Amino acid sequence: MVKKVAIVGAGVSGLTSIKCCLEEGLEPTCFEQSDDIGGLWRFTDYVEDGRPSVYKSMVSNTSKEMSAFTDFPYPENFPSFLSHHQLLEYLRMYTKHFDLQKYIQLKTKVISIKKCPHFSNTGQWEVVTEANGKQNSTIFDAVMVCVGYLTEPFLPLNSYPGLQKFNGHYFHSREYKTPEVFRDKKVLVIGMGNSGVDIAVEATQTAKRVMISTERGAWVLSRVFDNGYPWDMVFLSRFLNIIRNSLPGRITTWMIANRMSQWFNHANYGLIPQDRSVMREPVLNDLLPSCIITGKISIMPAVKEFKENAVVFVNAPTAEEVDIVVFATGYKASFPFIDESILKVENRHASLYKYIFLPQLEKPTLAIIGFIKPFGSIMPVMEIQARWVTRVFNGLCKLPPLKTMMEEINEKKKNKVNWFGLSFDEVLKTDCLVYCDELGSFIGIKPSVPALLLKDPMLAMKIFFGPCSPYQYRLTGPGKWDGARNAILNQWERVLKPIRIRVVEDPLNCFSCLLKGLAIFVILVGIYLSFN
Amino acid sequence: MVKKVAIVGAGVSGLTSIKCCLEEGLEPTCFEQSDDIGGLWRFTDYVEDGRPSVYKSMVSNTSKEMSAFTDFPYPENFPSFLSHHQLLEYLRMYTKHFDLQKYIQLKTKVISIKKCPHFSNTGQWEVVTEANGKQNSTIFDAVMVCVGYLTEPFLPLNSYPGLQKFNGHYFHSREYKTPEVFRDKKVLVIGMGNSGVDIAVEATQTAKRVMISTERGAWVLSRVFDNGYPWDMVFLSRFLNIIRNSLPGRITTWMIANRMSQWFNHANYGLIPQDRSVMREPVLNDLLPSCIITGKISIMPAVKEFKENAVVFVNAPTAEEVDIVVFATGYKASFPFIDESILKVENRHASLYKYIFLPQLEKPTLAIIGFIKPFGSIMPVMEIQARWVTRVFNGLCKLPPLKTMMEEINEKKKNKVNWFGLSFDEVLKTDCLVYCDELGSFIGIKPSVPALLLKDPMLAMKIFFGPCSPYQYRLTGPGKWDGARNAILNQWERVLKPIRIRVVEDPLNCFSCLLKGLAIFVILVGIYLSFN
Repeated sequence: MVKKVAIVGAGVSGLTSIKCCLEEGLEPTCFEQSDDIGGLWRFTDYVEDGRPSVYKSMVSNTSKEMSAFTDFPYPENFPSFLSHHQLLEYLRMYTKHFDLQKYIQLKTKVISIKKCPHFSNTGQWEVVTEANGKQNSTIFDAVMVCVGYLTEPFLPLNSYPGLQKFNGHYFHSREYKTPEVFRDKKVLVIGMGNSGVDIAVEATQTAKRVMISTERGAWVLSRVFDNGYPWDMVFLSRFLNIIRNSLPGRITTWMIANRMSQWFNHANYGLIPQDRSVMREPVLNDLLPSCIITGKISIMPAVKEFKENAVVFVNAPTAEEVDIVVFATGYKASFPFIDESILKVENRHASLYKYIFLPQLEKPTLAIIGFIKPFGSIMPVMEIQARWVTRVFNGLCKLPPLKTMMEEINEKKKNKVNWFGLSFDEVLKTDCLVYCDELGSFIGIKPSVPALLLKDPMLAMKIFFGPCSPYQYRLTGPGKWDGARNAILNQWERVLKPIRIRVVEDPLNCFSCLLKGLAIFVILVGIYLSFN
Repeated sequence: MVKKVAIVGAGVSGLTSIKCCLEEGLEPTCFEQSDDIGGLWRFTDYVEDGRPSVYKSMVSNTSKEMSAFTDFPYPENFPSFLSHHQLLEYLRMYTKHFDLQKYIQLKTKVISIKKCPHFSNTGQWEVVTEANGKQNSTIFDAVMVCVGYLTEPFLPLNSYPGLQKFNGHYFHSREYKTPEVFRDKKVLVIGMGNSGVDIAVEATQTAKRVMISTERGAWVLSRVFDNGYPWDMVFLSRFLNIIRNSLPGRITTWMIANRMSQWFNHANYGLIPQDRSVMREPVLNDLLPSCIITGKISIMPAVKEFKENAVVFVNAPTAEEVDIVVFATGYKASFPFIDESILKVENRHASLYKYIFLPQLEKPTLAIIGFIKPFGSIMPVMEIQARWVTRVFNGLCKLPPLKTMMEEINEKKKNKVNWFGLSFDEVLKTDCLVYCDELGSFIGIKPSVPALLLKDPMLAMKIFFGPCSPYQYRLTGPGKWDGARNAILNQWERVLKPIRIRVVEDPLNCFSCLLKGLAIFVILVGIYLSFN
């Protein structure tokens, strides 16, 4: 029987894992190698070894209502999209509210996690940690790995011919903190993920010229979506998800392409994805098209080769001068404290059941939390992972037989283009709503819209047509939270609260309704007459 | 007969005035008090007395195709929205191409412009200038005043109770150059014009907190409009203008309000205009809503009073701490070199026929160029003003009788809300298309769509449904330019040229057409079936 759980890392996933252990009556011990909690979201002026690093101006890509832990909404005066210090503040509030700090051992690095001698019986792990230069070994019944995958940069320098003769400066996006480094320079950012584009946009404040090189392109979305609502609160609803997933893949892709081009035509702006049959996560940036149309950023094709002070692009006749290159080429997951014979990362993913469990282990006492790229906020996804994992640990949930797990994993590995619904370009990417509902149904916390329709129709409508906010997974089942219903009903109020300070009476409102009514009437009469 | 023309100022309006004088066989002499041409668009690191001042990051609000002189398109590699140095470069190219420099006397300040003794006969003016500390008097047959109205700040400090006890720092937006001044400060920008919002948005790069105080609110538009095309190329077409101006004012206003809220709901963001029956010029800013939803900028109501280190807003219970206040309260026009008995600015405008001529003068030999706020780019408007003025000077165009002019001016002064079409909140504001067409018809350069429809139907369609670009006023009549037709037909190509560098084949295109066709077919069948 699992009791003592080791948790590696005190970032978002580590904190919520502690809380989930406590909820399930387990005894968590969290090891954090740095001197504070917060992980990715704790900004420091300098890059620290072995820790993720964010830049100073970083703002969350998903909105506060969609990025909350399921029973802990953000304060209503927080803006919809959060700076790193607001996110850290939220994590501190969460830690304080659920009294998590006492389970965390700071400045304690996990050196190794090894199976105990009688693992097949006990499922126990020997966890060796190091603090103050001293090593310590402890036996745990289970381990939750909460280290994320944004620590070790992926820097494929060999893919760029001529880079060794390039006289300029280059670095990985992880090293970036503020735009001063680009003052009066000609900057090239390679890669079009969120950080690449953020860095390029910020570079326009100081640089002489900014280019982004992208082979694959990307859809670019604004946080400010339809009528100014947060993109994820509009995009990620059960209703729209059903539509997206029931249509043939090509139609879904076409619909998304059309929707994405309403803001701006991605082909005209040189951004259109090369392969539109699979979905790459969209880049969230509010300013990129404006930077392009004002000539501050040029979108270039893939790099062909580097010269001494310049770079040549594919299909381009002339070289472009460059002083600084930023490789926004992403990260590779790494788990240096677990032997490769147990957990191996290949082709940027690992063979994990539901992105969490190693199927071959005799006991399911090792869980990887957050090694997933959901299309939406990762925070509630990691919490639901931890809720399920802790219930697997204490035996309330069971894993299927090895064969079933392996079949599913192998199917996933192929990362095929589905006939219906969205297909993604990477194994780690998944539809967060489908995934959370799946884990939710294992735990018994998935909300049932048909059942609610009779009991609480207003709530049912909000759940089905409104944003699929995390509080939905606290309405029922184990861990039910009484505040969940209100949190859902008031979610839009919390969005408007910090921005609607100046209020003006609207004299046009009745007039506007009248006009709309009139317009519909005229159209109906028109149709009627044209068929008579 | 007018021959010698004095032109005051070598900014945009001054340069095009020189060129128009030359076209009409006049002899221009342009006096520029600073040491270079360019006016507003010549950025300097420090504010210079008696000159307009722009901030370092300033980008044009209107697109290059809509802001060109009528016979001189921007280079195709220029971006659609231009930095001040690109605009200055364009002005230098214009000056060089039409050989205007030799008519300009730099470092020469106009001290006074006075009627000559026999003015009622000759219409002549005595222009006193000062250069190298020496004054000089010259007689001119006519004068074109091209000094703009963005030099003298409007700073209504008395309207802010308690400002004298405010311990923080305050300055007019004219003084602003770069955001360093706001480093770690709490900033309040008063006023929601283009510069106010630009400064506030830029302040978010360095400031601790940024607020904008606005009583009237404003519609905010993005340069990146429908499908990413420049806003003015979509918004300012003859077709849409006819629709806007033939509908009752309230419907036009409602349509515009609806259109403006597609990007974001202005009421939710605290920006909605207080008075929606008249049109204030929209604020052009691509980032404001993003700054609001990420909590970087708060939109506040009007200022009630200042405290020592804080400010109290109308309808707000508590004071907000503030370190720096920027008064983005606009400018007042001033013509210090002309006696008030001749030209008087009252209530931010002057009694001028077509915003140009003083009706009471015995001879129409004094013209004010650019004292107008068109809803669109002012550059081509000023050129068409200058083209008309120079033809009035040389007698090819005539002004109507005094009575007619006075009636029109007095009618304008009332600035009534029209029953049909748009009404503006200021006398100086006007529909640029209607205004240019009016002056164009005086000169004989207004394009006739019906006539073109037979001769050149493709061009006619582009002129009617496409953007009303300035080249339309060079298709016919005096000053006809052979390149005008091509300039119109290729305007969209010049928009895409600088941004569409990375090109990807579109395999979905046929599929997309097919789907669209199918959708239309299904709808038609649906309608047919439902009425049978």
